Formats: sequence, structure tokens, C-alpha cells
Amino acid sequence: MRILLIGYGAMNERVARLAEERDNEIVGVIVKDSSKQYPYPAFNSISKAPEADVAIDFSNPELLLPLLEEDFTLPLVIATTGEKEKVIEKLKEKSAHMPVFFSANMSYGVHILKEIIQYAVPLLEDFDIEMIEKHHNKKVDAPSGTLVQLYDAIKEKREQSVPVYDRHESSSKREAAEIGISSQRGGTIVGEHQVLFAGHDETIEITHRAQSKDIFANGAINVADVLVNKENGYYTYNNLNEERI
Amino acid sequence: MRILLIGYGAMNERVARLAEERDNEIVGVIVKDSSKQYPYPAFNSISKAPEADVAIDFSNPELLLPLLEEDFTLPLVIATTGEKEKVIEKLKEKSAHMPVFFSANMSYGVHILKEIIQYAVPLLEDFDIEMIEKHHNKKVDAPSGTLVQLYDAIKEKREQSVPVYDRHESSSKREAAEIGISSQRGGTIVGEHQVLFAGHDETIEITHRAQSKDIFANGAINVADVLVNKENGYYTYNNLNEERI
Amino acid sequence: MRILLIGYGAMNERVARLAEERDNEIVGVIVKDSSKQYPYPAFNSISKAPEADVAIDFSNPELLLPLLEEDFTLPLVIATTGEKEKVIEKLKEKSAHMPVFFSANMSYGVHILKEIIQYAVPLLEDFDIEMIEKHHNKKVDAPSGTLVQLYDAIKEKREQSVPVYDRHESSSKREAAEIGISSQRGGTIVGEHQVLFAGHDETIEITHRAQSKDIFANGAINVADVLVNKENGYYTYNNLNEERI
Amino acid sequence: MRILLIGYGAMNERVARLAEERDNEIVGVIVKDSSKQYPYPAFNSISKAPEADVAIDFSNPELLLPLLEEDFTLPLVIATTGEKEKVIEKLKEKSAHMPVFFSANMSYGVHILKEIIQYAVPLLEDFDIEMIEKHHNKKVDAPSGTLVQLYDAIKEKREQSVPVYDRHESSSKREAAEIGISSQRGGTIVGEHQVLFAGHDETIEITHRAQSKDIFANGAINVADVLVNKENGYYTYNNLNEERI
Repeated sequence: MRILLIGYGAMNERVARLAEERDNEIVGVIVKDSSKQYPYPAFNSISKAPEADVAIDFSNPELLLPLLEEDFTLPLVIATTGEKEKVIEKLKEKSAHMPVFFSANMSYGVHILKEIIQYAVPLLEDFDIEMIEKHHNKKVDAPSGTLVQLYDAIKEKREQSVPVYDRHESSSKREAAEIGISSQRGGTIVGEHQVLFAGHDETIEITHRAQSKDIFANGAINVADVLVNKENGYYTYNNLNEERI
Repeated sequence: MRILLIGYGAMNERVARLAEERDNEIVGVIVKDSSKQYPYPAFNSISKAPEADVAIDFSNPELLLPLLEEDFTLPLVIATTGEKEKVIEKLKEKSAHMPVFFSANMSYGVHILKEIIQYAVPLLEDFDIEMIEKHHNKKVDAPSGTLVQLYDAIKEKREQSVPVYDRHESSSKREAAEIGISSQRGGTIVGEHQVLFAGHDETIEITHRAQSKDIFANGAINVADVLVNKENGYYTYNNLNEERI
Repeated sequence: MRILLIGYGAMNERVARLAEERDNEIVGVIVKDSSKQYPYPAFNSISKAPEADVAIDFSNPELLLPLLEEDFTLPLVIATTGEKEKVIEKLKEKSAHMPVFFSANMSYGVHILKEIIQYAVPLLEDFDIEMIEKHHNKKVDAPSGTLVQLYDAIKEKREQSVPVYDRHESSSKREAAEIGISSQRGGTIVGEHQVLFAGHDETIEITHRAQSKDIFANGAINVADVLVNKENGYYTYNNLNEERI
Repeated sequence: MRILLIGYGAMNERVARLAEERDNEIVGVIVKDSSKQYPYPAFNSISKAPEADVAIDFSNPELLLPLLEEDFTLPLVIATTGEKEKVIEKLKEKSAHMPVFFSANMSYGVHILKEIIQYAVPLLEDFDIEMIEKHHNKKVDAPSGTLVQLYDAIKEKREQSVPVYDRHESSSKREAAEIGISSQRGGTIVGEHQVLFAGHDETIEITHRAQSKDIFANGAINVADVLVNKENGYYTYNNLNEERI
């Protein structure tokens, strides 16, 4: 594929490297300031960029939203974080004219983790649920965005759920609706997420471990591979391999 | 419930204790040699035993199969191991006249584990699968019966699967179809089963830990609770909470 | 051994059962109100009780401290929790006349866990440390007493350590001195403690899992076995198998 | 430091990248065929190479042993695998004239793991020991070299140990001297090693996870940092931070 990159931060650098290793071509990058030096031709609008088969975005609303005002047709794989509602609304508009994929988490494994957990929750309704995530010691936010997504996925299936972040001064028993949420930080851990289902004399633990951020970059490239052959429409991991919404 | 126990080994002793704690009554035990001393009235046929709401069996084909030749109607919860085909065939015959439940593994958590894994396998088709189980140092067979059940469940969904039990003298790369199977033995570990899905830079592990054999006894009592209100028919964990097969 | 039990709560009931299985004899129990019914002869002072080889205490300062005012010589295995300083002071006095063992946590494995961790901390000084414990959903305090002991053991070796119980509203990077402490609660989990050392691209995790409270009862019986052959003196797990302090 | 690289395979490429990031200089590489293209000046003998502060070797006996016949003084960090006895003998000779460090596993964490396990084994003499390692699906040998090192370390402390690689056709109980060894292969797992101590109703697990091969490259660079200030002598991780053997 000929790939246009939207944004050129750490993630799209990784996309470029991995996409080239997989025999794709990076035709250019779309950035705020196209006068800076980049290893690929740089542009500040899609209309000025060379023709491509697909665009892969790991940027931010500030860069992305103005681009979406332009008039173009180009399959889009979008991983922008922030201003989620506005971004999705705009992407759905564009999807009348091209296939558009959006996910705040491009890892296929995390997506499947979420599906597995949503499958498990109703089957384990007598089990207590607890969650933990581990990340490197430079991460400033807690819990991780991925854990929040997993929690939301659980809450869809167990609506009474209430998150509990700190038990160390509590002196009352756990309520069944609680979901304890813990965050560990240390070293260079890329990312680990675990959901514990604890029942009477038995537990089930489901754990996802990321070994490198390549899972996000490869996830986006894999989606691009599929998306270029799709009809116009708005896609997520939930309907990419099936029919359009 | 008034419960009749078929067999009175370690598992049904446990069923008796837990069932009584849950305000059920044990009306008697069916054993080979009813002249021995038992804490409950002992019989060697169902027809001689007092009326009951349900029978719970943790025995063996030698004891169970002759009993199934008797003429009676009584909801049956059967956990006999061995001669599986013959036992199931006979139970299906009986199920014309009473609700009959059979599972070689009465733990609800293990059943759900199996369901979760069967759900996950097709979604993770590019992931390698490996399995491990841990049990106490007195266990003579390996891998455990539960692991074999889990392997069979995986093989249903990934038909090309081939089990590999020992890699220490191999000197060739893993084939995609391989499923490595490891057994650890030590101390008094009650039972741990883990399925590892290993992909590109990410892994998903699903682990079940049993803390005591109560999970099997409680599983049987819980099934009995439901079964006594069921129509005649043959049940397993797959259809107990839905319609008959 | 002929064993006198001090206190007869859940833990000493367990000690009685396990001690008898190991061919020891329970000669009596010391309780507040010796007029109640117990499965063993009950007394409210040590001087009234029959002769024994050793006493095993799982009680509380209210029962224990008055007994220690009595005049007697009898090897003592003491697991009382609460008023630690006062109890230890009194036990050290008594230890001039008999061997006395004290530990707030009778599990041998937990003791060794603590030793292993104290061995590891100075060797892993560039590694971040995080701790987590899991217990059943009826436990009201958090973190567990055992985790606090482990934390104190770490702090002895890394004096700058600061505990952090909740990161979910923090928005700053982890400091090297932080030790994150998480508590999970669910089902009937007996007790799991884990220390994570996270370094550059590698982690070491040390995990202790308790399967039943027998580890505390058996720990006390094992200590008693050794203590009856010891000289007078004050013992803990640190010097029991070596010389007196 | 000015670093000379012996060998320029995947590991020393990594050493070069990481050493430069840490403000060291790569002055050249020693390779079999110095006429090929390398990103650094290439030589086929140490005497022809520019002056350096230290040499870091990730090569093989075929390249290394002839070099050790040369006459030179240069601190050496050697990670060659294969022909261990011959290599060590030669290195010990050279160490009369320069500080020489050898380890078949340059990861500091793995070294500490080994120390922790050797510390734990005598303390847990009633516990059964089992080992498992996980690596990527391209690895052809099993168990891993690191696991073999860990096993040897355990056997030093528990001499009666016997490795068991496959239990699936056994039908006898585990012997206390057995150490079960399992190897899992899947995806791109960099390396995970776990030692399980299983006792009566409690277990202790010690797990090392590598996230990238950087741990070996960084380990070698860290050793080089220390070694350049050492007296002549033969060093391993056991005496690097103390006195010479």
C-alpha cells in the first residue's frame, strides 16, 4: 500500500518503520509545520499530498479536525485521542464518501481482551470483579486509558458496578457491586491489564501483556490492509470483519 | 432438598457436609457394600432407599451402571468418571423419565473457563496456544482430566491442533498447529489451569485456580437446585440454564 | 507432644485437628470462661491445666497477658495479635525460665518470603518496587497485616521508601522512593502477596499464595516440635534454627 | 568509553545503538571478514584496531579464540556462547594482564534471579520445585540456556535433584527430588523464567520477565563501565562488585 501518515510522533515513526518492513510505501506525512525536516515529504494539508491508498493517523484533534474539513476521498485509519465525540461525529460524516476506521486503542489483542471480558461477565455474575494495570514509571495518568475502556465494557454488562480506587483506609466489607481498580508503575513496563473474577473457592484471571508499542502500529497497518477493500462506511473493530453498521 | 448420595468417597463426603450447611438433608447413601458403617443410612439399590428429591453421584461405572438398570424416577446429578460413552448412553435413556444432568467436571468455573476459551480461540487465530496445569504431588496422571477437556474444547475450534508434551529434545521451530501441554506437580496445589495465547508482541493468558475441591461439591449441589425444577431430559452445563436439547 | 491450647477460636480449632492428625495430644484449652462446653477440658489458668510439653497460643492480649503473670515453666508458641510491644516485653521476661517463640504470622512460607525479599531489595536497587495483596471479600482491613510486615521488611533495606495507596488522581510521574500498595478483595481468596521489582526492560515478581489457613496452624505445630528441645530463651523465626539471640 | 566490538551480529548491533545513546563511542568492530560493509571501521585482529577502553564481545569461539592468541592488554567483556571450558581457561590466562569479565548471560536481572533462587532453595527444603520458561516461536532449543543455568544453580543447593521433562505418560507419584521442567513457545515472547516452590497449602513463585534483548546489551555496557576501573583479574557477576577471585 501507499500510506500517508497523519502526524509524525513516536507512534507514526513506528508505523513507518513497520509498514516499510512489510513492503508498503510511505508517500508522505501530514504535520502542523511542514517546513521542518522529516524523513518523508511533509505537507500541511491532504490535498497537497501525493496520492495514497490509505491514511494512518496517530495525531490529535488539533491536527486532525481541520484536515477533515477538506474535500477528499481516501480510506482513513484514525487513532487520534481526545475530543472523542467531535472526532467520531466528523468521521461519520466523512464515511459517506470513503471507508473510515476509528479506534482509541489500535491493539487487536486489547480489542479481543475487551470482547472476551464482555463475554465472561454475564456468565460469572456471582463472581467479584477486580482490575489491575501495570505501566512504566514515566506514565503520569492512572488508571490507563485501556483500563478505563475495559471498565466501561464491564459496566455495560454489570450496570450496578462502582469503581473503588483505594481501600487502605476503608474498614467495611466489600460490596458485590464494587470493582477494585489498581495501578502499578515501575521500570519500563509497556502495559499489562488484568481482570480477576473471584468466586467461591475458585478464580479466573484474564491477563493481557503488551511487549512493545508495535502492537498499536501493527494493529493500524493490519486495519489499513482490510479497510482499503471495504465499501464506504464507518468502521470499528466491532464491525470491520463483518458488515457495515 | 432431600438428597440421596450415590457413592460415598471423598467427594460425596464433602457434598454431604456442604449440602447440610446449606440446609439440605442427606437421606442416605448408595454404596457397594451397605453393611459397612456410614454416617447415613446405607443401601445397595435405589429402590430400597428412602424417597428423595434428587440423587448426587460421585462414583464410578461399576457402582452406577447397575443402578441405572433399576426402575425409578428421580432427578440425577451424575459426575461418574470412566466409561463415558456407555454412561452417557444409559443416562440419555433414563432421561425420558426424569431430568438427568451429567458432567465429568462439576466445577462451574471450569465450565465457564471452557466457554471463554472456546469464544476466544476463533478470535485469536494468529496467536499460538500453549497450556499448563498444576496439581499436588500425589496426582499420578498427567495431564489432568480438566486439561484434556480444555484441549478438546480448543481442538473443536482449531481442528488442525496437535498436542506437544515434551520439547526438551526437539531442535526444530514450533509449528503453528502445535499446542504445547505442560504439567507441574508440587505440594498440595488443588488445581490450576492456564491457556496462553501468544501473538506478535502481545499475549493473553486465561487462568483458573481452584482453592479447594468444594468447587466440585458445590457445583453439584447448585445443579441439583436447578435440576429438581426441570422437565425430563438430558442436561449438561451447556443447556441447563436454557431449553432442553 | 502433649499440647495445651491458649484460646480456642478458629485458628486453635484448626491447630487441634491438625495436631491430632499428626499424632499429638491436646491436653486442654485455656479460655476466658471455662464453664462453657469445649471438646477438650477447659481451664482459665495455666496452673490448673494438666501437664503439657508445649502451649500454642492463638488468642489476644486480654486472655494472654494475665496468664503470663502466673508462675510456670512451659515452652510457649505465641501468635497473639495486638499490643505487640507489651506482649513481647512480657515474653522476653518469661524466656529466662523457658523457651518462648513469638510471631505475628506463623506461616513459614510468609516468613521465608520476607527473608527472600529482604535479600533481593539491596541487589535490585535500581528497580522500582510495587506490592499487591489479594484476600476474600469479607476482609475489612486493607492492606493486610502480612503486607504491612513485608513493607516494613523492605523499608528496613530501602529506608527512603514511601507507601502510595492510590494513584488514580495523581498526575505526576512516579518517584523512585515510592512503593505502590494495592489491595484486591474478592470471593474466598485465602491470601496472595506479591512484590514486583520493575527495572529497565525486565521485571522480577515474587508471589506467595496461601491455599488455606492451615499454613498458620501447621507453622505453629512445626515451631512447637523444634521449641520443646530448645534452651530457655526468646525465639522468632529469625533465630529458631540457629542460636539464641 | 571508547568501545571495540567483537562480533557484529544482532546483539552487538544493539550494544552499538545503546552505547551511543549513552554517549560512548564505537571505535570499530572485529569480524571474520573485514572486507564487508559495516557502519563502523572493521578489522580482523585486535592489534590492527584503534585503541579502545574496553572490548565487548557477543560472538562465538570461532571468532574469539584466535583473537585471544594475540598479544594485547584491553579490558574484555565476553559473552561468547559455546566451548565454555576452553573459553574460560583462555580468559583466565589473559586475566593476568587485564581485567576480563565473562558471563554466558549478560542480563543483570537474570543474574540476580539466580542469586535469589540459590538463597531460597535451602530455606524451602520441604517445598517441591518446578520450573518453566517461555520464549518466542522461532526458538529451536528447549529448555533455554538460562533455564539450564537456573537449574544448575538449584542443583548446587539441592544435590539430589533430577530433571523431569515430560510427565504425560507417567503414572507414578512425583518424587521429592524431581524438578519438573517445562518449555512454552509462542508468538514473540522475549523470555520468561519461573521457579515454583510448592509446599503444604502454600506456594512461592519467582518469575523473571524480559521485555527486550536490550537487557543483555545494557548488562554488557554496565559491566564495561565497572570493569575499566578494575585491577587485572578474572571477573563474573559473582565478584565484579567485590574483590577478585
